[in-house]
Amino acid sequence: MFQTYDDTANPALVAERAKRLRDELKRRGLDGFLIPRADEHQGEYVPPHAERLRWLTGFSGSAGLAIVLTDKAAIFIDGRYTLQVRSQTDVNIFEPQHLIEQPPVRWIEEHLPKGAKLAYDPWLHTIDAIARYKAAAEKAGGTLVPIDTNPLDAVWTDQPPPPDAPVQPHELKYAGEPASEKLKRVSASLDGADAAMLTMPDSIAWAFNIRGGDVGHTPLPLSFALIHADGHAELFIDERKVGPEARAHLGNVVSLRPKDDLAKALDDLGADKKTVLVDPATCASWINDRLQTAGAKIKRGTDPCELPKACKNAAEIDGTRAAHLRDGRALTRFLAWLGQTAPRGGIDEITASKKLEAFRADTGALKDLSFDTISGAGPNGAIVHYRVTQGTNQPLQPGELFLVDSGAQYLDGTTDVTRTVAIGRASAEQRDRFTRVLKGHIGIATARFPEGTSGSQLDALARMSLWKAGLDYDHGTGHGVGSYLSVHEGPQRISKLGSVPLRPGMIISNEPGYYKTGAYGIRIENLLVVTPATMIEGGERPMLGFETLTLAPIDLNCVEASLLTAEEIEWLNAYHARVREALTPGLDAETLAWLKDATRTI
Amino acid sequence: MFQTYDDTANPALVAERAKRLRDELKRRGLDGFLIPRADEHQGEYVPPHAERLRWLTGFSGSAGLAIVLTDKAAIFIDGRYTLQVRSQTDVNIFEPQHLIEQPPVRWIEEHLPKGAKLAYDPWLHTIDAIARYKAAAEKAGGTLVPIDTNPLDAVWTDQPPPPDAPVQPHELKYAGEPASEKLKRVSASLDGADAAMLTMPDSIAWAFNIRGGDVGHTPLPLSFALIHADGHAELFIDERKVGPEARAHLGNVVSLRPKDDLAKALDDLGADKKTVLVDPATCASWINDRLQTAGAKIKRGTDPCELPKACKNAAEIDGTRAAHLRDGRALTRFLAWLGQTAPRGGIDEITASKKLEAFRADTGALKDLSFDTISGAGPNGAIVHYRVTQGTNQPLQPGELFLVDSGAQYLDGTTDVTRTVAIGRASAEQRDRFTRVLKGHIGIATARFPEGTSGSQLDALARMSLWKAGLDYDHGTGHGVGSYLSVHEGPQRISKLGSVPLRPGMIISNEPGYYKTGAYGIRIENLLVVTPATMIEGGERPMLGFETLTLAPIDLNCVEASLLTAEEIEWLNAYHARVREALTPGLDAETLAWLKDATRTI
Repeated sequence: MFQTYDDTANPALVAERAKRLRDELKRRGLDGFLIPRADEHQGEYVPPHAERLRWLTGFSGSAGLAIVLTDKAAIFIDGRYTLQVRSQTDVNIFEPQHLIEQPPVRWIEEHLPKGAKLAYDPWLHTIDAIARYKAAAEKAGGTLVPIDTNPLDAVWTDQPPPPDAPVQPHELKYAGEPASEKLKRVSASLDGADAAMLTMPDSIAWAFNIRGGDVGHTPLPLSFALIHADGHAELFIDERKVGPEARAHLGNVVSLRPKDDLAKALDDLGADKKTVLVDPATCASWINDRLQTAGAKIKRGTDPCELPKACKNAAEIDGTRAAHLRDGRALTRFLAWLGQTAPRGGIDEITASKKLEAFRADTGALKDLSFDTISGAGPNGAIVHYRVTQGTNQPLQPGELFLVDSGAQYLDGTTDVTRTVAIGRASAEQRDRFTRVLKGHIGIATARFPEGTSGSQLDALARMSLWKAGLDYDHGTGHGVGSYLSVHEGPQRISKLGSVPLRPGMIISNEPGYYKTGAYGIRIENLLVVTPATMIEGGERPMLGFETLTLAPIDLNCVEASLLTAEEIEWLNAYHARVREALTPGLDAETLAWLKDATRTI
Repeated sequence: MFQTYDDTANPALVAERAKRLRDELKRRGLDGFLIPRADEHQGEYVPPHAERLRWLTGFSGSAGLAIVLTDKAAIFIDGRYTLQVRSQTDVNIFEPQHLIEQPPVRWIEEHLPKGAKLAYDPWLHTIDAIARYKAAAEKAGGTLVPIDTNPLDAVWTDQPPPPDAPVQPHELKYAGEPASEKLKRVSASLDGADAAMLTMPDSIAWAFNIRGGDVGHTPLPLSFALIHADGHAELFIDERKVGPEARAHLGNVVSLRPKDDLAKALDDLGADKKTVLVDPATCASWINDRLQTAGAKIKRGTDPCELPKACKNAAEIDGTRAAHLRDGRALTRFLAWLGQTAPRGGIDEITASKKLEAFRADTGALKDLSFDTISGAGPNGAIVHYRVTQGTNQPLQPGELFLVDSGAQYLDGTTDVTRTVAIGRASAEQRDRFTRVLKGHIGIATARFPEGTSGSQLDALARMSLWKAGLDYDHGTGHGVGSYLSVHEGPQRISKLGSVPLRPGMIISNEPGYYKTGAYGIRIENLLVVTPATMIEGGERPMLGFETLTLAPIDLNCVEASLLTAEEIEWLNAYHARVREALTPGLDAETLAWLKDATRTI
């Protein structure tokens, strides 16, 4: 199984660990230390040895920062985690702070004593972040100081070793473009820089057509790379991870170098007065400092793999279609089982989540879940980033809604899908809210828009029917999704922050929702791929549109048909007919019978 | 009359003027010079003595830049002006370049000779722009050099003098808030800076409750100001402009200083090591250089008056409602006259434009037009920023559409309205397009959205019905509008670039369109004010919405009712009923009879 359900936090451990860290800081003559959630690569998932924030504070969320001073400490979390942090950490040691309302920079300005040395590990923070912390420390009359070895690692006596999962070639039939061609494209795009520094493992995985297993749920090979303007590339990686097959695969396109050679490579770039492209939003401060000290010229810019990686080629799109067909059958088997079993009682969030994983494993192709399944019954469904544990587990009860947001990693594609189903009958209010969310979902699914349109322009289409009723939801409408890679990738997004134009081949989620705290949550999520739209008679401009990739029924028991327009009903019926036809081959008779009813014409 | 219709450009003059400038550059040992459209204040309108780009090149558009080198020269214009520039300048001297596709920085990189000195007048460029030009010049191996006196002014023998229009107090009944209170608010918002440098005359006009007359169509008092964190303010202005009444009005809130004192004031800030807030997007490079040389610390940030100015208070909103009522009657008298006269022939774009100005003048309250009226018949309506001259003037012919975009400056408010009317019958295609534009207009007018929503999120509501037909328009959907001030103001806008959240009190245009080159143009524009929306039963969040300010009929002859939803028809009928009821008092019988029919229920 790829998911566990244990409660791992133990607030009672926090005080002693904070004391050990403070003693170590004192020993080194430091007055404070920054402990981010991030590792050297700034990804959403980090390996166990980099779970420093969690070890120190108990907090297990996917984003956060702790600051330890000699006499006070704080932990900064966003709105998703305000409740969770209080159950996981010792709030007498780490005072919870809202990352946006009381940002770390302001806290530093207000609490860092004059003359104090606030230390940080330059491998774990981005260039942009350090610039902000530095200004804040100086405003307080203190200084921000980089340290060579992490004082927390020094006191974390049972810190796990760094990961060493083997690197796997990502076959051309899935990748669709040889690494050599990708390197040509990327090196030609450097716009005057002599080399690009790659620090994001998903960029490296994409560029060299490799995958790894260093973190959970995402097949990342943790490593660094340089792509030179002449097309030559260097991969800096723990050599234990590269077996003969991977070595043969990589041999023709990239120089393999030990991880520790990176420092020397940066020094060489500096000695030759090269201009190096670094992404200040993701590149570790250490790398920037090393380059500058060595004499290199820094060109700030976006990771040059980000956009080409986001625009999937035909092989990747075909792959994701196959992955969604497979995943849709597994999810439909689960939904059929749930529909037949849950109303009789005895199902809880964990049994449901395990059952869904089992159906996915049954496909024989499951490499991992793409994230921990969100399995939320009743009030737990209203917690947007809920993760069920033994301690929070709830039964699925008649009259409640059950929200399940889940996804899988297959060699041919990454899935991410949310369905909300009524256990028994849905109330009139629940049907009203569900149908408004569905109207928004259809608004995005059927959107046609010209090239150059950004996700922020489309966001309101998903929210209008809720806004008209004085309702809304507090998350984006869509995030980018990788191809057997990160389930959250940029730059594409549908949200008020989505300023990047959508381009053909981008995969993006369509997931409006509605959450009633203490009662229920609703989300309907399909993945989409941006496609050129068919030209309409009389149309003057090429338009783009979306093809829905996800194939699974939307619970008709929650739909109030009278709220839908004729076009919306037409979309729903056509989608359900497509789901039924696509999934039928390979489904058992019992599931098929359920599916026929679940996708009936309304 | 506030508008002229002459063709002023004479391409035959360009060669000789360019030669005079080049001779002057040579005399000073310079190899090139940048000539922007802007004056020292970066506004949309500039006084005659600052029309340097127009004098040199003949080009009269509202944005552009020329670069003169010893052996070549170029003029950079945006998509609005690609045709116009070719009719106005001598393209053998100034090669037209598209501002976006071949930006000046790239042209400099490619054409500036190694070792060349490219000069600029630091009063006429923003800090941001100079940073870009400097990098480009250095990339070409040359240098960018500021000059103390403008070489173009030296050869422009009949350059008009700077304007000296008197400053007028803007009465409290219109402004709604004493200048002393505004200064308190602004000085309290400086967030650590010791002073804010104001260079935008509309910010100064707002802050001190004054208006001026230094440029056309916008009542700006050209001047500079400093607002200090302690609440003290200094206004640097040509003292001839400040009569006894204005002096008395300003006396209590601001120190009046001669314009030439600004340099000393900046030097004093530097000597005291003060931190000064400057807006790099609008502040003249000269000011930044002077502050830095003097030792001041620069804090880059948005003009602190921009946002408070954009959020109109109750008196300003009441004023704009009164202005729109007055303006709506004038426009309706014009539309009635047009409807009765134009089908019989004999009307052309200029007579129509003059007639509309006359109806506005008839109100007795007209201070100026808020911009040159766009009066476009048939194909001229498809030119988005068309300005009619004797040379382009066309008759209004049956079977054509006539687009008229106009506005007025009244003491109580600024208007901006576009109507498109059929001369005789509209074709089926014209009705289809008009109705799609109307659906977009209604989509914006009826939008409800939560606080924090930005204009970019709403933009698609205006375009969806066009997108569905493969159509679009190449301009934003809405721009901010001032209160007896600029007809274009920020930060509010409805467009893909509108990232600032909309706030109650912001006035913004709602103007979707459709343009068929060589055939016709359609635009339907009303001004809106952002208001708190009435709470809906069951609604959970406070929502915002729009109140439509503009009052004038929308041509029902162009509406294809079968394309409208029941809700859209309801909106149109309710709007027309409101227009009819509001305008009726004070309209003559003939206009009233026409209005009744024009606003009939459909």
